[in-house]
Amino acid sequence: MGNQRPAIPKGTRDFLPAEMIRRKYIFKVIEETYQRFGFLPIETPAMELMSSLTGKYGDEGDKLLFRILNSGDYLSGADAQLLQSGDAQRLAPQISEKGLRYDLTVPFARFVVQHRYEISFPFRRYQIQPVWRADRPQKGRYREFFQCDGDVIGSDSLLNEAELVQIIDGVFTQLGIRVSIRLNNRKVLAGIAEAIGRPDRLGTITIGLDKLDKIGEEGVRGELQDRGLSLAEVTSLLEICRVQGDTASRLEQLEKSIGSTASGARGLEELRTLFGYLGDSPLNNAIEADLTLARGLDYYTGTIIEVVALDHSLGSLCGGGRYDDLTGIFGLPGVSGVGISFGADRIYDVMDALHLFPAAAAGHTRLLFLNFGGAEERESLRWLRQVRDAGIPAEIYPDPAKLKKQMAHADALGIPYVAILGEAERASGRITLKQMASGEQHAFVLEALIQHLSA
Amino acid sequence: MGNQRPAIPKGTRDFLPAEMIRRKYIFKVIEETYQRFGFLPIETPAMELMSSLTGKYGDEGDKLLFRILNSGDYLSGADAQLLQSGDAQRLAPQISEKGLRYDLTVPFARFVVQHRYEISFPFRRYQIQPVWRADRPQKGRYREFFQCDGDVIGSDSLLNEAELVQIIDGVFTQLGIRVSIRLNNRKVLAGIAEAIGRPDRLGTITIGLDKLDKIGEEGVRGELQDRGLSLAEVTSLLEICRVQGDTASRLEQLEKSIGSTASGARGLEELRTLFGYLGDSPLNNAIEADLTLARGLDYYTGTIIEVVALDHSLGSLCGGGRYDDLTGIFGLPGVSGVGISFGADRIYDVMDALHLFPAAAAGHTRLLFLNFGGAEERESLRWLRQVRDAGIPAEIYPDPAKLKKQMAHADALGIPYVAILGEAERASGRITLKQMASGEQHAFVLEALIQHLSA
Repeated sequence: MGNQRPAIPKGTRDFLPAEMIRRKYIFKVIEETYQRFGFLPIETPAMELMSSLTGKYGDEGDKLLFRILNSGDYLSGADAQLLQSGDAQRLAPQISEKGLRYDLTVPFARFVVQHRYEISFPFRRYQIQPVWRADRPQKGRYREFFQCDGDVIGSDSLLNEAELVQIIDGVFTQLGIRVSIRLNNRKVLAGIAEAIGRPDRLGTITIGLDKLDKIGEEGVRGELQDRGLSLAEVTSLLEICRVQGDTASRLEQLEKSIGSTASGARGLEELRTLFGYLGDSPLNNAIEADLTLARGLDYYTGTIIEVVALDHSLGSLCGGGRYDDLTGIFGLPGVSGVGISFGADRIYDVMDALHLFPAAAAGHTRLLFLNFGGAEERESLRWLRQVRDAGIPAEIYPDPAKLKKQMAHADALGIPYVAILGEAERASGRITLKQMASGEQHAFVLEALIQHLSA
Repeated sequence: MGNQRPAIPKGTRDFLPAEMIRRKYIFKVIEETYQRFGFLPIETPAMELMSSLTGKYGDEGDKLLFRILNSGDYLSGADAQLLQSGDAQRLAPQISEKGLRYDLTVPFARFVVQHRYEISFPFRRYQIQPVWRADRPQKGRYREFFQCDGDVIGSDSLLNEAELVQIIDGVFTQLGIRVSIRLNNRKVLAGIAEAIGRPDRLGTITIGLDKLDKIGEEGVRGELQDRGLSLAEVTSLLEICRVQGDTASRLEQLEKSIGSTASGARGLEELRTLFGYLGDSPLNNAIEADLTLARGLDYYTGTIIEVVALDHSLGSLCGGGRYDDLTGIFGLPGVSGVGISFGADRIYDVMDALHLFPAAAAGHTRLLFLNFGGAEERESLRWLRQVRDAGIPAEIYPDPAKLKKQMAHADALGIPYVAILGEAERASGRITLKQMASGEQHAFVLEALIQHLSA
């Protein structure tokens, strides 16, 4: 025995075949939906220059970046005093110039600026790749996980938002997950802040609103006062947000309270246009205007989108929004974009919990030829070749092992049929096909076999 | 303007849509072929523990590993004296416990041992993921590139080798690349070393043979003598390797020269069995026994496989072999396996150079609706929805921009049709479909349009 116990870094995962096949099913649904809407695939490197990554995700995000040690004598460029001081944080930039991507949004912004003369705008891209974060691992949170992003950049038409919502609706409908699609607009939030006389405290206000679900009105009231809003301001805020009824009626109530502010009026107009587009083309899932939705406020400037599962409490399965200046940080200001990101890992967990994976996502191989060795093996190989050439995934057990062992293998892999080509079958020119689930057996000539398995 | 110029780490690449679609085509052919042969997908994390990676690729390989800096105060565990000494190599293990995977073989060995009770053996897996090496970037060599591995582990049947060769033949046939599939056996090489009386110098001998193509017999003669073989030994070696004719005749000649050695006899028997399997099921590409083939001698113990393009000189497009103790390093000895690895990036370059990509690999979107704004836009959206629901990838220009600009966009994206739904069309209930290449226009009702585009 060797002395090395196999293990992987904490927070990362191996994917076994059964899980892989299900994951691929999710990616396929998302990818085909993006394609049906005219989105084009891109990929960016796992490693980005640290200068592209730092400062984009806030101080907390910077700490979660995985840094790559420079190759070769990485200490040669390091300041000797700094080395001795033991100041890891200040030393890091001198010994590591690259890092693993933290999300797909910043690399996409970098990509758009870098390739702006090779791209035709408006540019619709999708990107399905892993990202890495040095988060504390916990249930449902990993250090390597996949994002499935779709963005339209170079167009400020709200039609793009409408199409992204349709993509969301299409993906979750096809996966069988019932969701609520929640929409808000950063300008509406700004309008609310303005209407209560505190446009300077937009951040505080939205963080407070975000907690309404969790801690209730009283909790929010207390928190916002702790953070320096007056009782009158908080009361006025909660009054505005206490809108009820369907979307049309909510927007009407808001019109009265914030329609006189510049931001509020524009935000409401945008929401109305978006709901207008969506109303023309009925969705399978519910959409609603949700004033408490504030995610990613740092760079969203218009529409905000969030999707939650109705039958499972696992937080957001997809989210996104409009950003007016994402590429500005890389030297290309004034380009508006809007995007969404599906969290494949959470979607997997929800589908698993709700038993939503179709049986077809269990395996590929349809048929295992039992191996009887000798001339029967050679004859089996001829049949196998024909079956595969007809596009049917099939295999042969590689050794003439005990039949019980071979059958157990088919069982373990969930292969639905085994083919028996022994001496008798070889003489008759037919093989015996056994259905594993029922135990039923039938003899087939080659063409009939292929037809049967293709059905 | 921002002050940050967008760039990516040297040796890495962004993939734009046109390239992505072609790459996906290659991956799809490889993946579907693996699946047709009963191989199952797995994935492993990008990061492995350094203890899993170091010592597996030789000293040179160890230097090419990308290391991840530990999170948080990575200096806290570092030896103070070592820090001051500036010894980067010895310090590295103390500040970085993880690294990026260097290939898919070692992670697979680790995977098999770690999950051995969850796997049914023989285990056939495929794995298509990027790997990272801190190589000096040059034309055709990248620091991030994709490998497409297939292995069968837990079976020493040569049927597995035969199936891997069939997979290789199937993949390159479908891609349209004419290749030569070269086979050798490590035991034959050992037999040759034994036959000339130098079993102790197998490494030197195979490295020499490997260069026959490049530097010729005289070159090899000189090099081997420089490395301590006698003139008689070298003459005898070159004599043995000067086999001619077809495979059967080559094996026969070898039988005479090395058949009396234990390794040689077994190696020849294995090659004969393998060629026997392959002869039963004709391949599209040539296979040949090649005694000079010595790749990856470090861990291969039986069959050695290498594939080169016939119409392009870009080295090996695929390679592999049998290893009898890959999992031993992780504590599970005595498990035999055999595998191959397709180099997707080189395959791409060859296909590109030989213009082998099919036109279908150019893009997804079939139809762009021009945007006339207002009521026409809304009517277009209704049509668009129906077209997409029929599974046809389509999009609408998001703004009622100048038609010339919209048409140029369709052109830039290679979208074959545009749909015109202006006032006249709206009144008539038909849209005008324009084929971009010919300029031809025809009016269609919805059903006819869908039928036309599905054809």
